[in-house]
Formats: sequence, structure tokens, C-alpha cells
Amino acid sequence: MRRFVADKVKTLINRSRTTCSSSSPITTSTSALQRLTSSSSQSPAVLRFLSTSSDSMASDYSSTPVTLNNVNPKVLKCEYAVRGEIVNLAQKLQQDLKENPGSHTFDEILYCNIGNPQSLAQQPITFFREVLALCDHPLILDKSETQGLFSADSIERAFQILDQIPGRATGAYSHSQGIKGLRDTIASGIEARDGFPADPNDIFLTDGASPAVHMMMQLLIGSENDGILCPIPQYPLYSASIALHGGTLVPYYLDEETGWGLEVSELENQLKTAKSKGINVRALAVINPGNPTGQVLAEANQREIVEFCKKEGLVLLADEVYQENVYVPEKQFHSFKKVARSMGFGEKDISLVSFQSVSKGFYGECGKRGGYMEVTGFSPEIREQIYKVASVNLCSNISGQILASLVMSPPKVGDESYESFAAEKEGILSSLARRAKTLEDAFRSLEGVTCNKAEGAMYLFPRINLPDKAIKAAEEAKTAPDAFYARRLLNATGIVVVPGSGFGQRPGTWHFRCTILPQEEKIPAIVSRLTEFHKQFMDEFRG
Amino acid sequence: MRRFVADKVKTLINRSRTTCSSSSPITTSTSALQRLTSSSSQSPAVLRFLSTSSDSMASDYSSTPVTLNNVNPKVLKCEYAVRGEIVNLAQKLQQDLKENPGSHTFDEILYCNIGNPQSLAQQPITFFREVLALCDHPLILDKSETQGLFSADSIERAFQILDQIPGRATGAYSHSQGIKGLRDTIASGIEARDGFPADPNDIFLTDGASPAVHMMMQLLIGSENDGILCPIPQYPLYSASIALHGGTLVPYYLDEETGWGLEVSELENQLKTAKSKGINVRALAVINPGNPTGQVLAEANQREIVEFCKKEGLVLLADEVYQENVYVPEKQFHSFKKVARSMGFGEKDISLVSFQSVSKGFYGECGKRGGYMEVTGFSPEIREQIYKVASVNLCSNISGQILASLVMSPPKVGDESYESFAAEKEGILSSLARRAKTLEDAFRSLEGVTCNKAEGAMYLFPRINLPDKAIKAAEEAKTAPDAFYARRLLNATGIVVVPGSGFGQRPGTWHFRCTILPQEEKIPAIVSRLTEFHKQFMDEFRG
Repeated sequence: MRRFVADKVKTLINRSRTTCSSSSPITTSTSALQRLTSSSSQSPAVLRFLSTSSDSMASDYSSTPVTLNNVNPKVLKCEYAVRGEIVNLAQKLQQDLKENPGSHTFDEILYCNIGNPQSLAQQPITFFREVLALCDHPLILDKSETQGLFSADSIERAFQILDQIPGRATGAYSHSQGIKGLRDTIASGIEARDGFPADPNDIFLTDGASPAVHMMMQLLIGSENDGILCPIPQYPLYSASIALHGGTLVPYYLDEETGWGLEVSELENQLKTAKSKGINVRALAVINPGNPTGQVLAEANQREIVEFCKKEGLVLLADEVYQENVYVPEKQFHSFKKVARSMGFGEKDISLVSFQSVSKGFYGECGKRGGYMEVTGFSPEIREQIYKVASVNLCSNISGQILASLVMSPPKVGDESYESFAAEKEGILSSLARRAKTLEDAFRSLEGVTCNKAEGAMYLFPRINLPDKAIKAAEEAKTAPDAFYARRLLNATGIVVVPGSGFGQRPGTWHFRCTILPQEEKIPAIVSRLTEFHKQFMDEFRG
Repeated sequence: MRRFVADKVKTLINRSRTTCSSSSPITTSTSALQRLTSSSSQSPAVLRFLSTSSDSMASDYSSTPVTLNNVNPKVLKCEYAVRGEIVNLAQKLQQDLKENPGSHTFDEILYCNIGNPQSLAQQPITFFREVLALCDHPLILDKSETQGLFSADSIERAFQILDQIPGRATGAYSHSQGIKGLRDTIASGIEARDGFPADPNDIFLTDGASPAVHMMMQLLIGSENDGILCPIPQYPLYSASIALHGGTLVPYYLDEETGWGLEVSELENQLKTAKSKGINVRALAVINPGNPTGQVLAEANQREIVEFCKKEGLVLLADEVYQENVYVPEKQFHSFKKVARSMGFGEKDISLVSFQSVSKGFYGECGKRGGYMEVTGFSPEIREQIYKVASVNLCSNISGQILASLVMSPPKVGDESYESFAAEKEGILSSLARRAKTLEDAFRSLEGVTCNKAEGAMYLFPRINLPDKAIKAAEEAKTAPDAFYARRLLNATGIVVVPGSGFGQRPGTWHFRCTILPQEEKIPAIVSRLTEFHKQFMDEFRG
């Protein structure tokens, strides 16, 4: 039976070979199947299928109709390392610790794999939560006790928002793009940020940024001949979404030597290579500030990127979810729309989609699943198609919609909540900056490790120069060297990071992504556990 | 330029002809492009492109890269009538009324197109909203004023729920399937409903039922050779999702003569026909209680359906979102899982997915986007694929997750909220039953109209025997006869219904879907406007 399953996987691999040139640099580069065809590493995901498909299990389900052989092959190709194998192991260890306290050398699992601030004890912004609670239960708005529990401006804001919702019905489906009044607020917030007009009809409110990215991929990808230029390393939502929609990820490598710089010459080269292989490149995805790489693009660089998209007829997909996460005084966030408009490109000159989320910034409201995309430079016919796709899911959740409007229109000087709001915001952002610096310094002090500066976003992406002996040990363990390191780190310290191979990296280089989000008081202990582990690891594997 | 756009549409039609046999009954039957190829009606969607693409507009966007010619053709094929052309017209009329009160013979738009109870003034269930507000803003839980504002059991429930969330962080991403403690609660609720065990690991919490349906379609559809058996008439989420995933909708017709009965012989015939055309039928979708048809399946019928799926190796996709909406004493909802288990089919005998939503029932919390699917009878390898797809979007919104747990575990006898909760529930359900009956009787009294009994769900789907002259007038107006009627109805009365062609219907029959949701006190006026309109319509077009 084990052979039976292995044969099925082999069939899938062959199938995938017939549709994709596996030697090409232009591939859905994180594909489990394609990686399995290379000699250097086996996909953990596929290995997991093989190892869990014991005789008994496979036969148990032998009369059910869905198998690895007939499931959508695009689903098999998709990978999402941020919640992959290492996280599964972490959950297992956490269960161990719960059932047998003291069974490991650490007493908690530190999830540094994902930008999920509130899971690491970051507190929500009070004003935002006050308004959400009042909108959830408007019956209490007029009660006298409410005055004692909620700030005056949160009550006022809740009334304003409810007045924007037909019938004050926060439990009704909204317009497919989101509640019009909230989109007005968001458009005003964009105008205030950019100094250029924004149209509420360009805003599509979504359940976080991910569904918005999927929506654009769905629009642009009709077949594997449609390519999307994506940074390497990249946030694997992009590779996953491209794989699920059956397109081709056209990689462009960020330059680690120049702080993960984005070179237009690299874009040009990769575009040319892709075209020569018959790929119709439709869009350029840019993540700014960078994930996992933490760089903040300079405005001059952004202008070059806009010029490139204009010249080559590419849609610019601007992932700007970390727009409020900039930690160095010498850098500033500029939206691509502001840059394009300041260059004189208007609505009809360039197709540009900006993604924003309530999950990041200083608020970190991941669980609320709020976000939007601002869609500019598409003809009415195409807009109608985007609207139709949005309509099929009816609307995004109303609390997330409300939160997206709050994020783009927080309390102002003079509002009752302003001072506490500003203090909460400043407290979180300055702490994030300190944590980034401490962790950056710690990584840099490790033998054989270099580390980018965290200018923005929520991550460090240190590079590990692994000894040959460690690489050989990883090969023997049938895993990628960076996954081998991450697994060892987790088992020794309880710290969960994501191997660089989940994001893509230049062949022969090894990294991992670590968030800057653990509580500040825990950072010294983390640094010492990390440092001790690394020393032991190097002692074990140094040549 | 108009010709240019028309040519592009023609190219698309030809392209679609090459991939699908347009004469086949097995088609993504609501496809705009395919309908355009038939002589009987033109697609309103495509017509809208043509009419809005004036010379100036098309040339304005001539330098942008995305056009109808290079957008994903699967997106073009997708249609979703529930928010289609008639609704666009309604929104325009509503704007008219706002800007020029008195400009029409009615003073409000009555949205009977969509099952959106709170948009028509249904009030949310107080206990549910109390718990949501407290979970949104847990800081107030310990304040004395809170005791005066919230029921004791809502406070207790909020504490319980927060204790189930690691770090009480309602703002954190949860497990990709949803918070484990909430899944435990939901599984207990399913067990209490069915009398058979339910496993929390089988529950995937989702942003409403729609993303769950998409997820299963994504898993099952690899190409246009993969078919899904869907009822006709059907809720167009199914046709839209199948079109977006590039599969084939295999229709089975419900029998209007027997109250929209589901005949297994029809399933067998359609399956045979599909197989003879090389379609690999993967799943059977059943909507029970029915949408738009309102029937509640008898248990004996459900057993036959389970047997059929088992025999034919089909996944049973059970849309059970109206499980609490049954209005006639002689019928009762039985989940397909309960029916399958009671027949002796266990976890490994049949692949069954049950969809549930917080948007329907007596609570109607559409805007909260909560729901779940219970996934049973899939091997661990396939479960892992479903989990991976869920992971790519991280998790569903936490308020929706909490609400899904509340819906499956409402207040019990003895809880402080129980009596008011039970009164709210009973008030809504009995009013819905009365409204259904009144509207059903009203439709039945109209000349040339027959109407099903609304046993369940939220809709009536009356059939109109349209006079030849009306059909001819519709042809001249280049629209389907039922859309012609619905448009006339809207323009004359402000009542928004969805033409039957949006759901599919036997050729030559015409229907429309009307919700039973308008406020009870408005029903008499609606009936009289409707009756008057229908009489005038028939007077105008009667032979």
C-alpha cells in the first residue's frame, strides 16, 4: 500500500513535468512536486503524505472517492510554509508541555513564525475595540452606564458609523464592496496620507488582505501562461495564490547585499527570460515594507518601478500592509499611488492595486479579518468583473469593515481618546523598533550569521552560513538545511521560525524568518536561548 | 470602438465554444457567453458591457493592460444573479428616490432579492450581540457598570469563550480551522442535534458558508472534465463557484409538480449522460431546505440520496444553512450526516461535507460572516490538503467564529437570557411562517401564477405563465421574459425579486425568487402593490 501511494505521487510528479519545465527558473517555485523532482531536497509535505499513509490508514479510506490521484493538482502544488511543517511540530510540542510539564528544556512555545502580534500579548487599541463593541450591541448606546464604560468619542464614532449603515443593521450583508460611508472614510484617509484624491468607488473592503490578493490573481491568471513577477524572498501567499490559480510565478531576486534592494535591471532580465519562454507576464507584485525582508523602498526606486510597469504594461500589485511599520528615521513609507500620481500618471495611465490590512501596523488586529484594496486604472468593463467576483462572496465581515475605517481615521487631537490612543500607538511602535534592533544585533553576533536591518514590517530574515556537515546531516534527514536548523532550534528552545525555503532564496543560501513580536521583557531570554543553541549547533557541525 | 469591443466579446464566445459543447445539457448553465450564443436571450451582463463601452470610455483606458480579451475567461463565465442587473437598477432607483422624493409611484425599494433579514429590520438576537460586544472589548468585563448593561449569562459566556482563546486574544489569528474550544462547542451542538458523535477536528470555521463551498470546489475541480451535480433551480453560488474553478455543472432538475421533489432517477439519468460525455462527476450538491425552492426533504428521500452517493462514489455536499428555517409541522430537518450514520455508514464509508452559516436561521447575522463546514469521510492525506487551503487565508474572522459557536449552543432553560432568547427566536420564526403563507397565498391568487409551498428556507419561487405577447416584448427588449417581468415589477412597485433564469429552470418555464423577509406589517401593502402590478401587466400583454 505504501508503494501504491508512492506510485500515485510519482504519477502526479510526471503529470506536473508535462505541464511545467522543471529546469526553468520560472516556476511556481515552492511547488512540492517540483521540489521532489530535484535531487537536493525532498518536499516535507509530500514526505509527510508518504510517512503517514501507512497500510492501515490508506485501506481504511479505500472506499472514499477523493484521493491524491484525483484531487485538484493545483491544490497539491500549493504550499504555505508560514503554517507548515515546523508549526505542526510546534503544536505537538505545546501539547506535550501541557500534558507533561517539564518534558522539555523550555516551558513555552514562542511563535515567531507569523506576524500575529496579539497572540504574543500585544494589547488591542482601546478606542478601536470600544467602537467595535458599541457597533456590535447598539442597544446599549443610549444607556447611562455606557457613559461610564466607554469614551465619549467612541460613542460618537459608533453613532456616526451606524448612521452610515442602512437601517443601522450591522448584521446585514453590505454592498459587495463594503459599506459606502466606511469607504468614504477610507478614501479620505488615503487622501490625507497621500495628498492626492481617492475615490470611495475604488475601495473594495475584504476579509484581510489575502482574499483581495486572491481576487486579483483570479482576475489576471487564466492559465499557466499567465505570469506574475514576485520578489524572492516573498511572502508565500503570493506563490500559494498563483499555484491555486494555475499561473506561473516569475521570480525576481531581491539583492541581499544592498539590504534586499529591488533592482529594475533584475526585473527587466526576468521579464525578458519569462517572455522568451512564452510567459505572458501580467503583473508585478511588490511588498513594501518588505516581507520577509523588512526593507523600505526609497521613493526614487519606487519611481523606477512605476516607470517599468507603465513601460511594460504590467499591473502593479502593491502590498502595502506594513505601511505603518517603519522603524528607522531615515526611511518613510510612500504609497505607490502617491508616487505614481506625483509622477503625473493619472487614473487612466497605470493599473495599480494597493492592499491594506487591519492585521498589521500598530493595531495588529489579525483575528478581525479586515482590509481593503484600492483599485485604480482599470476600465469600467474590468471593474465590473472585479465587482462580480466580490459579489459572489456577498461582502466582507462588517466588524472588519468598521475596523478598516477606524485604522484609516483614528482619533484626532482634541478627541477624548486622542492622548491614550497616541500613547498606545507610540508605545507599541517604539517597542517594536527596540525589539527589532535587539534581535538584529543578536543575530549579527552569531557565528556565520548576517542579518538585514529591520527598516520596517515585522520580521528579520537572517542568513546562516551553515557548515557543510550540517548540510550533509540535513540531506540525510531528507530535509532542507534551513528547515533542519529551524527544527533543531524549535526542539532545543521552543522558538518557532520559518525556514527561508518557504519564502524562496538564492540557491545555496539559507535563511529563516523570525518575527520581532515577542514581548519585550522576554527578548533577553530569547536572545540567550538562541545564542546558546546556535553555539551548540555550530560546535556540533563545525568542520 | 463599439465594434472593437463587440469583436472582443465575439472572440470570447468562440473561445468558449471551442472548450465547451454549447448544445450539451451539461454546461456551466448560467454562463453569460453561452447564453449569448443562443437565440432566445442575450446575457444582460454582456449587453451591459456593450452599452457602457462608448467610444470615449474605451479609448480612455486604452493604455491600461487588462481588457476583456485577456482577463481570466473563467471570471467572464461566472454569473451571480442575486446581485445582478436588477439589483443595479434598484440601487439606481433608490438614489433617484433620495435625490428626488416623489419621483416614482413608490417611496421605498423593497429588497426581496436576497436572504438578508436584518436589512429588512429584523433585529439581532440580544444574547448573541451581548456576547460579541463583551468579547470585542473584554476590558469592561470586570466593571460594575457592565452588570447593569449585560445579562449575567452573556458575561459568563464571554468569560468561557475568552478562556478558550490562547491569551484571550480575540485579535489574534486562530488555528486555521478556527479556535479549538469553539469547535468543541460546535461539535457538541451537532451531537445534540443529530444524536451521533461529531469530532471538533472535522470542523472548519469559515467566513460564512460561501468560502467553504469554494474550498470544496477548489479541492474537487481540476479541469472542465470534473463535474458537480447541482440542482436546477440552484442557489447561484454553486454555478458561480464551478465556473470560477473551471469545472462543469451537471444539472439535475427538481420536479416542480411534486413540490420541487428530488428524484433519484433524475440523478441517475443525468449522471449517465454526463459520464457518456466524458465528465468525471465528483460530487452531488444538495440544498436542504431548498434555495430558491423552499422544499424540505423527507428522510426517506435523503436515504436514497445517501445510497446514490455511496454507490456512485460521489462526495455529498450538503448545504444545510437553512436547517433552522422549517415552517410546516409535517416536515422536520434531518442532517445528511445523521441520516447517513443512522443507515450504518460510518466515517470511512461516505464522504460528506455539511455547510452551516450564521447568516440564516432565526438569527440572520449575514454581516458577521460566520459559518463552518463539517468534513467527514476524507483520508488524512486529503484532510491535509483541505487544511492547507484553509491555512493560506490564515483563519476566518473571530467574531464570526464566536457567533457560529453561539448559534450551535444558545442559552438553555434556567439561563438568565433563556426566556427572552426563546421569545425572540419564536417571534421571528413564527412571523416568518406567517409571512411565507401570506405571500404564498398572494402569489397563488395571481392570474397564471402557481407557487410552491414554503416548507423551509427564506424564499418563494412562483412560476409565471407569461402571455406570448410578453415573451415577444421581452425578446424585443433583448432580455429573458422573467427578467422582463422582474424589471417591470421593480419599476412599478419598488419590489426587487430575482428572475428565475438566475437560478436555472426548465426551458420554457419562467419564475422569480422572492424572499419572505419584508417586515410583517408591510406585507399587506406589498401584496396589494404586487397584485395590482400583475393585473396591469396581464392586461397589457394578455393575448
